[in-house]
Amino acid sequence: MTPGPGVARTLLPKGFFAAGINCGVRKYRPDLGLIMSDVDAVGAGVFTQSTAKAAPVKWSQELVPSGQIRAIVTNSGQANAATGELGVINNLKMVEATAKAIGCNPKQVLSASTGVIGVHMMIDLITEAMPELHARLTDTAENFAVSILTTDLVPKTVTTLVELSKGSVRVTGISKGSGMIHPNMATMLGYILTDAAMTPEEAKTILKTSTDLSFNMVSVDGDTSTNDCSFLLANGASGVKVETVEDFEKIQSAITGVSQLLAKAIARDGEGATKLIEIKIEGSNDLPLARKAARGLTISPLFKSAIHGEDPNWGRILARLGAEGIPEAALNKMELHLQGEIIFKAGAPVAFDRDKVRGLLRSDTVFVNINLFDGSETATAWGCDLSKKYVEINTEYT
Amino acid sequence: MTPGPGVARTLLPKGFFAAGINCGVRKYRPDLGLIMSDVDAVGAGVFTQSTAKAAPVKWSQELVPSGQIRAIVTNSGQANAATGELGVINNLKMVEATAKAIGCNPKQVLSASTGVIGVHMMIDLITEAMPELHARLTDTAENFAVSILTTDLVPKTVTTLVELSKGSVRVTGISKGSGMIHPNMATMLGYILTDAAMTPEEAKTILKTSTDLSFNMVSVDGDTSTNDCSFLLANGASGVKVETVEDFEKIQSAITGVSQLLAKAIARDGEGATKLIEIKIEGSNDLPLARKAARGLTISPLFKSAIHGEDPNWGRILARLGAEGIPEAALNKMELHLQGEIIFKAGAPVAFDRDKVRGLLRSDTVFVNINLFDGSETATAWGCDLSKKYVEINTEYT
Repeated sequence: MTPGPGVARTLLPKGFFAAGINCGVRKYRPDLGLIMSDVDAVGAGVFTQSTAKAAPVKWSQELVPSGQIRAIVTNSGQANAATGELGVINNLKMVEATAKAIGCNPKQVLSASTGVIGVHMMIDLITEAMPELHARLTDTAENFAVSILTTDLVPKTVTTLVELSKGSVRVTGISKGSGMIHPNMATMLGYILTDAAMTPEEAKTILKTSTDLSFNMVSVDGDTSTNDCSFLLANGASGVKVETVEDFEKIQSAITGVSQLLAKAIARDGEGATKLIEIKIEGSNDLPLARKAARGLTISPLFKSAIHGEDPNWGRILARLGAEGIPEAALNKMELHLQGEIIFKAGAPVAFDRDKVRGLLRSDTVFVNINLFDGSETATAWGCDLSKKYVEINTEYT
Repeated sequence: MTPGPGVARTLLPKGFFAAGINCGVRKYRPDLGLIMSDVDAVGAGVFTQSTAKAAPVKWSQELVPSGQIRAIVTNSGQANAATGELGVINNLKMVEATAKAIGCNPKQVLSASTGVIGVHMMIDLITEAMPELHARLTDTAENFAVSILTTDLVPKTVTTLVELSKGSVRVTGISKGSGMIHPNMATMLGYILTDAAMTPEEAKTILKTSTDLSFNMVSVDGDTSTNDCSFLLANGASGVKVETVEDFEKIQSAITGVSQLLAKAIARDGEGATKLIEIKIEGSNDLPLARKAARGLTISPLFKSAIHGEDPNWGRILARLGAEGIPEAALNKMELHLQGEIIFKAGAPVAFDRDKVRGLLRSDTVFVNINLFDGSETATAWGCDLSKKYVEINTEYT
C-alpha cells in the first residue's frame, strides 16, 4: 500500500478519471474537482449526523445506495451550508452543469462542498468552468486531491491492489480534512474508488464498516462539520466480481486499510499539528465506551497540549478516562504505556525515567497504549497535538 | 452583591473563619487553606462524576449531607488523584491533623485537593504546618481564596447579605478553577458559606439547584477534573432560620447568584483567556438539549478561536448547534445575535455590518444570544476564548 503523493503518482482504478482546477472562487488554489466513472458505478455514502446539513449533503444522501453513479463533483472555499433555499438551487446548478459536461442524468452525480459556512456560492464561476474541468480528466488522483483542500497542508491519496479469487482489483482513496474534524457516523470528505464489481448493499456494508474503524475514530478539534461525507464507488471495470466470502473479507480489509491511512493522514495534517497521536485501548468489555474514551482523549486540549510540549503528564490521560466513565475497577487494574514505556499500573504511578520518556516524545508519532485487563475489545483512535499555530489559524480564518 | 477582591475585604458569615499559608509544597505561593466554623454546621456537597475520583473527593462524599461539619481543609499543588492506597492514607493524615488543631472529630472535617494528578502528597509538610494554619484564622476570605489557586490568575470571592423573614443572613462564596474545567454535576472547587440555619436536606437541595445553574454550565476546556467538588456550609450563627417558602426562595436565589458570579469569574480567568463568553439559548422545548448545546459551544475550539480573533465567523456557531443535535426545524426558525447584532435568521444569513460587529467583539465580554422560537426553556452557559497562551500554559505544566 503506497501512501501518496510524492512516492509515485496515485493511479485510479480502471474506468475512473479525475481532475481539479481553479475556477476563480479562490484566488490561486484549485477549488473545483471532479471524479468520473466512464460506466455506471455502484455508489454508497455515509454522511454527517449534524442536523445542520449542507445542501450537497442532502442532495447526495438521496441518491445512494445506487447502481448508476457516474460522478462526484466537489468545490472548495465555500461550504454551501446554512445557505437556505438558494443553497439548494446552487447545488442543483453545480450538479446539472456536471451532468451536461459528462452527458448523463443529474441524478447520477453526487456532490460535496467544503469551505466557509454561510456564504452563498459563486455558482456562475463553477458552472462556467465545468467544460474545462471535464477536459482535464486523467487517470491519476493528484489534481483532484489538491482541489478539495482547505487548511490542509498536504493532499491525501492512497492506492493498493487486492487479489480476489478471479483476479486483481485496485482500491484508491482520497480525502481532505484538517479542521472541524470530529466525524460522527461519517467523515470529512472521503472518496474510495474501486474497479471491483459489487452490489450496492455490499458497497454500503463495506463503507459503513471501514468508516467506523477509520474516519469515525479521528478527531482534530471535536467540532463535527456540516459537510462531512464519504463515498465508495465501485464500477466493476476490472471485470472482477466480489464473489466469495474471502473476496468480501479481502476487499473489506483493503478498504478499511486505505481508510485508516487516510484518517491518520488527516490527523497528522490537523490544523497546527506537529504530531500524530494514536490511542489504543485494549482489554475492554464495553466497545462503545472504549471507543468513546479513546476519542475523548483525542479531543482533550489538556492532553493534546501536554503532548505538544513533549511533557509526560499522564495524569491528564487518567483524568480523561475517568471523565469518560471508564469504571473505577478497570482504572485500578489498567496498565498505561506512553511510547512503549510503562507509566501507571495497578491504580498507582510507576516510577519511570522522565528524561527518557521526554526524549521518546520528541517523535512525530505518539503512541498511548492502555490495557484495562477487563475484556477482549479494542478501540483505536487518532488525533494530533494542540499548538499555538492551531489558534493562529482559527483566529484569522474568514 | 460585591465581587471581590480589590473592591473590599470579603467578609465571612458569622461564626466562619478562614486562613491560607505556604507550607512548602509549592515554592512561594500559598498552598494550604482552612475554613472553620466555630459551631457545628450543616454541610452539603456535590462531587465530580468522574470515575477517577481523587482520595479527598471519596472522603468528603461519605460525610455529607451532615449536621456536624466543622471545617474544610484544602491543599493546592498536588491533587492526590491516581495515588492508590497511599493517597487514601495521606488524605486521612491531612484530615486528622486538621481535626487535632481544631479539637474536633476527623469525621467533621471535609477535604479537597487540587494540582498535579498522580504524584504522592508531601504530607509531612502539610501536617506540620497545621498548627500555624489554625493560628492564622481570620473572618475574611482572601487568604484562603489565594491558597487554593493553581493556574488561576485571580482569587474568586463574593459576599452578599440576604434579608429573610426573621432577619438578615450572609452568603459568601469562594472558588478556584482555570484549567480542566468542565464540571459534570459538580464543580472545580467551590465553597459557599452562610450563617443562615437550615436542614441538611435543604442545604442539599439548594446546592444542587445552584450548581446546575452555575458551575455545571461553565467550561474552559471540556476536560472534567478528578477533584471537582463544591460545598455548602450553613452554621446558623446568625440566629436566623430559613422558615418560610419565601425564605427558601430568597436564599436559593442568593446562593445561585453567588455561584453564577463565581462561575463567570472562573471562565474569565480560564487559562489564557482574554474574554468571557456568555451563551444564552432561549425558546427551546428541550432544556437538557439546550443546556448541552450551550455548553457544546463553550468547548468548541473553532468558535473559541474565532472569538479570540474578534472574527464574527458565525457559521461555526451554527455548525456546533447542528452537531449538538438542535433539530433542523428549530435551526431554520432561529435568530442568532452576536453582541446584540442580528446575524442569522429564518434559515439564512442576514447581511450585517462586519466592521461594526468586529468592533463590538473587541469587548472583554461576548454575548451570543440564540432564540429557537420553539418553546419556553432557556439555558445559559459561560466559557472563554482560546488563545495561544492556553497552549503555552499547558505545554509547560509539570
